[in-house]
Amino acid sequence: MKNQLVIYNTLSRKKELFIPLVEGKAGLYVCGPTVYSDTHLGHARPFITFDLLFRYLLYSGYQVRYVRNITDVGHLENEAEESGEDKISKKARVEQIEPMEVVQKYVNTFRRNMTQLNVLPPGIEPTASGHIIEQQQYIDSILQKGFAYEVNGSVYFDVEKYNKLHHYGKLSGRNLEDVRSNTRKLEGQDEKKNPFDFALWKKASPEHIMRWPSKWSEGFPGWHLECSAMSKKYLGEVFDIHGGGMDLVFPHHECEIAQSTASQGKEAVRYWMHNNMITINGQKMARSLGNFITLDQLFSGNHEMLDKAWSPMTIRFFILQAHYRSTIDFSNEALQASEKGLERLMAAIDTLEKLPASGNSTVDVKGLKEKCFAALDDDLNSPVAIAHLFDGVRMINSIAHGQEQIDSAGLDELKSLFKVFVFDVLGLFRETQESTENDGLLKGVVDFLLNLRIEAKTRKDWATADKIRNELNSLGIEIKDTKEGFEWSLKG
Amino acid sequence: MKNQLVIYNTLSRKKELFIPLVEGKAGLYVCGPTVYSDTHLGHARPFITFDLLFRYLLYSGYQVRYVRNITDVGHLENEAEESGEDKISKKARVEQIEPMEVVQKYVNTFRRNMTQLNVLPPGIEPTASGHIIEQQQYIDSILQKGFAYEVNGSVYFDVEKYNKLHHYGKLSGRNLEDVRSNTRKLEGQDEKKNPFDFALWKKASPEHIMRWPSKWSEGFPGWHLECSAMSKKYLGEVFDIHGGGMDLVFPHHECEIAQSTASQGKEAVRYWMHNNMITINGQKMARSLGNFITLDQLFSGNHEMLDKAWSPMTIRFFILQAHYRSTIDFSNEALQASEKGLERLMAAIDTLEKLPASGNSTVDVKGLKEKCFAALDDDLNSPVAIAHLFDGVRMINSIAHGQEQIDSAGLDELKSLFKVFVFDVLGLFRETQESTENDGLLKGVVDFLLNLRIEAKTRKDWATADKIRNELNSLGIEIKDTKEGFEWSLKG
Repeated sequence: MKNQLVIYNTLSRKKELFIPLVEGKAGLYVCGPTVYSDTHLGHARPFITFDLLFRYLLYSGYQVRYVRNITDVGHLENEAEESGEDKISKKARVEQIEPMEVVQKYVNTFRRNMTQLNVLPPGIEPTASGHIIEQQQYIDSILQKGFAYEVNGSVYFDVEKYNKLHHYGKLSGRNLEDVRSNTRKLEGQDEKKNPFDFALWKKASPEHIMRWPSKWSEGFPGWHLECSAMSKKYLGEVFDIHGGGMDLVFPHHECEIAQSTASQGKEAVRYWMHNNMITINGQKMARSLGNFITLDQLFSGNHEMLDKAWSPMTIRFFILQAHYRSTIDFSNEALQASEKGLERLMAAIDTLEKLPASGNSTVDVKGLKEKCFAALDDDLNSPVAIAHLFDGVRMINSIAHGQEQIDSAGLDELKSLFKVFVFDVLGLFRETQESTENDGLLKGVVDFLLNLRIEAKTRKDWATADKIRNELNSLGIEIKDTKEGFEWSLKG
Repeated sequence: MKNQLVIYNTLSRKKELFIPLVEGKAGLYVCGPTVYSDTHLGHARPFITFDLLFRYLLYSGYQVRYVRNITDVGHLENEAEESGEDKISKKARVEQIEPMEVVQKYVNTFRRNMTQLNVLPPGIEPTASGHIIEQQQYIDSILQKGFAYEVNGSVYFDVEKYNKLHHYGKLSGRNLEDVRSNTRKLEGQDEKKNPFDFALWKKASPEHIMRWPSKWSEGFPGWHLECSAMSKKYLGEVFDIHGGGMDLVFPHHECEIAQSTASQGKEAVRYWMHNNMITINGQKMARSLGNFITLDQLFSGNHEMLDKAWSPMTIRFFILQAHYRSTIDFSNEALQASEKGLERLMAAIDTLEKLPASGNSTVDVKGLKEKCFAALDDDLNSPVAIAHLFDGVRMINSIAHGQEQIDSAGLDELKSLFKVFVFDVLGLFRETQESTENDGLLKGVVDFLLNLRIEAKTRKDWATADKIRNELNSLGIEIKDTKEGFEWSLKG
């Protein structure tokens, strides 16, 4: 491997050197979306965070098996209390369509949004409803080990019994007494031995649409189960990295640890990684809190809290400019700063392409490169890596202005660094260039017009020259006169 | 409903008026891709054909539940003989990745290609591997009715027994003796009562990767079963329309009829629709024949048989210019003709936007509209509908040249007809406009340049005027002088 990646493991609460289970291979499981509504900015963060990890592992030479699930069943309205309707069934009832039509609709939106954000598709994208058998087998194994019990066709995990041998709460830093005192006992939930026991299989009530046969009842699997069953199927009993949002630490990931320990006598996950939240006015952005902005709204500017549309790459850069374990507070000002920063970065890459090589070098490209990768090796510290990139931007501009020199080998290395780091690892792309097919044509026409302007100036036809400049300006094109003639760019 | 759609029913071998099971609702099931390789031109045809049907049903006011599956398991190499490896497992072995990584890779390509072709996503896109329980339940029901038998952990459909009460071969126009004489008896298949019996459940051999537990064995479902099980789950025991390529009539759809009749005592499908094949030098284009061109190759021009790249809309228009029950022979010449035809159509729509309304009308828009929709009502006769649209193109051009007049109401109707028919129903779009963001800017710059040219002409500066024309021509922009000034377009 090229690098020495260190990861903050939520379980050990410290940074650990990443040593994969099998040399050269990395198994990665990330909790995917529950598809019952449009994807919002808060959702974008985990998928960009773990896309950065995925890209960095690939860059580092690992063969990565990346599994990111789609939760299309079993996620109840009141998560903590395990009551209420299935979120997808409820949406289907409200919109009067089949639950699977709800799933398809929002999966389509999610995938489109991820493509816009340049988030690479995972290698496997399994659905919870597509793995009912595997979940039932998992329940069987827990029942056999005595850590679950069946009541009235439902099966619950016996937290108290488990906690006698293992520590329920180890990931979130709780103990069972904390959990006990924070769990409400609800009417109609008397069938559980303890209110903090969680469902592995729920018998479906008559109005529940999504249901499958089982030896216990016609019903559906508990939400926590799908990730244990699907990660085992595609990554094995023990695998390298499990990622997700910090809000999933308890109860979701805590329950995953309990399930795998109960089922197989050992934990499944070696490194737990959790990204922090996006806040808005200091509060977590969440559908349940009603303070969210969807990605489509961000990209179109169509939301009362938005000053303007913010492009997918601006959003991506904005998220990468914070360390994944810090909160990010949403604001138009912060997005504006990200947009400007990204423009500077891309402009420097343009300049880099045209830099002249000198006989000797006054800049330290090797040192720059080492710093960039050292930052990512340090628990994916993307903001520090980006700060080093901006040192590179200053380096490029100094060379362009003749204040520094670079030799031919150094220039190649600098180009390669920016290409690899910005495009492949950070996953940014040049939005205007890549999204337009007619750019070549536009360039031809504008260049021709600016040559006409030079001719007009040559024959001292100032009126025509000014007219061309003013018209192009009004169309959003900025013109810079240079020794060689002109340069132009689209206004930001 | 607005229209009186007539459909050619493969089962009855005649055109029948489409009367849905439930008024105002249409249930549609289409056989989707087996995802073990890139999507080729031959695959594009069924999905464009049934996209036209889906769009036309939506236009006609139906609430459509459109289900198109993804075959990700159970499709063996030698279909007719039910032997060999699973196609996806084989690919996984060859590429040394998990079968589900193969699935994901090619599903991603398929979805991208469908988006490029403007094929609307179906309402539900179920996978075979995600419906193992439903398929097992289906097998149980056939076993209970006595039309299947278990041998060594596999379950086979008893075709001979079924044929004593029902007609096996009714869809494809065969009888059992035809089938018998065309089926080879293979070594190692002795466990079947008859070589033409087909598998409902296959016990997995030790090296078979994709397997699930069942009461019969660890194994996997037979290919024909998934469509019966998933259509029943999402559309009910009996539903309106089942579509697919003509190559699926036997054995796939024949077996579906046998399965549903055996399981539930009645057939599931009311209208069977089959599109014909795309041929290349007179031979069916198929992966197994090695004579295919992938969609990505078509869109990029990167294939020795291609003169150039053909855009997604050219491909779509090419396919719609033939009736879905006719063969289409691939050739560069035919694609060239489609490209030109599509350009003429789009140019006419531009002209239409600028047409002046007169006090009276000499053209029959109502008659044109009726003919267009009558053609689609006649078993989706898109080539006839497109021929009528070209009558409309001539109408538009005659009005533009002052040879005909149209009044304001007629003009509104004509605009609406073209918009609805071309964009919504045929699903075409303007590729240069929709795919480029800088078109507005380009238009601004070119318009400015052409205005400079008019000013040059006004002051009799012919050199400048010619220079502008020549430069724009060489950049691929065609200029037409008009009474109002100018028009320009990108060369095809």
